[in-house]
Amino acid sequence: MAAKEEEVTLLGVVGSPFLHRVQIALKLKGIEYKYLEDDLNNKSDLLLKYNPVYKMIPVLVHNEKPISESLVIVEYIDDTWKHNPILPSDPYQRALARFWAKFIDDKCVAPAWKSAFIVDEKEKEKAAEELFEALQFLENELKGKFFAGDEIGFVDIAAVLIPIVQEVAGLQLFTSERFPKLFQWSQDFHNHPLVNPVLPPRDQLFAYFKARAQSFAAKRKN
Amino acid sequence: MAAKEEEVTLLGVVGSPFLHRVQIALKLKGIEYKYLEDDLNNKSDLLLKYNPVYKMIPVLVHNEKPISESLVIVEYIDDTWKHNPILPSDPYQRALARFWAKFIDDKCVAPAWKSAFIVDEKEKEKAAEELFEALQFLENELKGKFFAGDEIGFVDIAAVLIPIVQEVAGLQLFTSERFPKLFQWSQDFHNHPLVNPVLPPRDQLFAYFKARAQSFAAKRKN
Repeated sequence: MAAKEEEVTLLGVVGSPFLHRVQIALKLKGIEYKYLEDDLNNKSDLLLKYNPVYKMIPVLVHNEKPISESLVIVEYIDDTWKHNPILPSDPYQRALARFWAKFIDDKCVAPAWKSAFIVDEKEKEKAAEELFEALQFLENELKGKFFAGDEIGFVDIAAVLIPIVQEVAGLQLFTSERFPKLFQWSQDFHNHPLVNPVLPPRDQLFAYFKARAQSFAAKRKN
Repeated sequence: MAAKEEEVTLLGVVGSPFLHRVQIALKLKGIEYKYLEDDLNNKSDLLLKYNPVYKMIPVLVHNEKPISESLVIVEYIDDTWKHNPILPSDPYQRALARFWAKFIDDKCVAPAWKSAFIVDEKEKEKAAEELFEALQFLENELKGKFFAGDEIGFVDIAAVLIPIVQEVAGLQLFTSERFPKLFQWSQDFHNHPLVNPVLPPRDQLFAYFKARAQSFAAKRKN
């Protein structure tokens, strides 16, 4: 638990998988924090003050020091509170974890986002194909129950958004035939006692994605 | 220096700023390594074997274990050889370094690449504007001689490509009027005794970018 003098505040929007990454990391460490819900259509002064570069959630504020970008925050949490490690201690295993987390951000997030938000069928199909190709690499990489073995680690946390987005996009990529290992992983991960309480009910998830899809569509028109 | 039993091999293509990131990190640590020049138009079996996901350089192979993605490699080097630290030890300063390195990859690399490679004047102009906006954030962030203070650190290494690309693109963004601090930084960084020997002569840099531009243009046509 965080000592009494520690002030940990998290700015987020419920339903954002990037927020969930940080929430799972805090839960793994048993850190208590104050949660502030933001509004992406009417961003708070606090969000603009603490993340002037991207103006996006999540932002973790620890003793008045703000940190942005979900994976940077997760590494900060792991560097600050050393118990229940999220990244392995071996330099090579750490590098592999960072490599796959970056792979998820580079090769899964963009096409998954497109699959969920784009209305054009052809573009959507292309994005789904890209995602399919990327997931094949992850399927091959998954050797234990979780990416790092028996316990949840950095890559699992990074990957939280994949099952969510595929559900929202109605892609049904994670079937037991197509990606049997990822399918089992998504079940185990979702039902994990530290992860499950963090994930919001389906209607809140869908509400978040609907709002993001609308804002995404509006931006594409401009 | 690496102990005698350590085998460190680096796969690269001279002129690639991503390769230079790794070379500067190895130089900072004083690690000796075997360099293997690859050919992006005719990739070696070793590159395909060691980086089957991206099939891109740089790849560091340490005692037969391959690591890809330049910033992941730089963190690996820092985690493995602890002397002459590249990242700060304080968790918050580490997070800031990672945040800005990621910012450079997300907000500077893509528009810089486009400015250098795209022939369409309107697209080129838009990319230059995006880059200009991103550089303003970096200009404000630069408080000492280097990003972390008096010594070269993670953000400087990440930023190595900015002065190179702007020169290739003929952008002249780093003038003493526009970005006085970045201008001074690029001079100090380029002339640093650990960085200067790593950077290839101008004709090799230009040859690399010309080859990349051709392959980029060919891909856009398809």
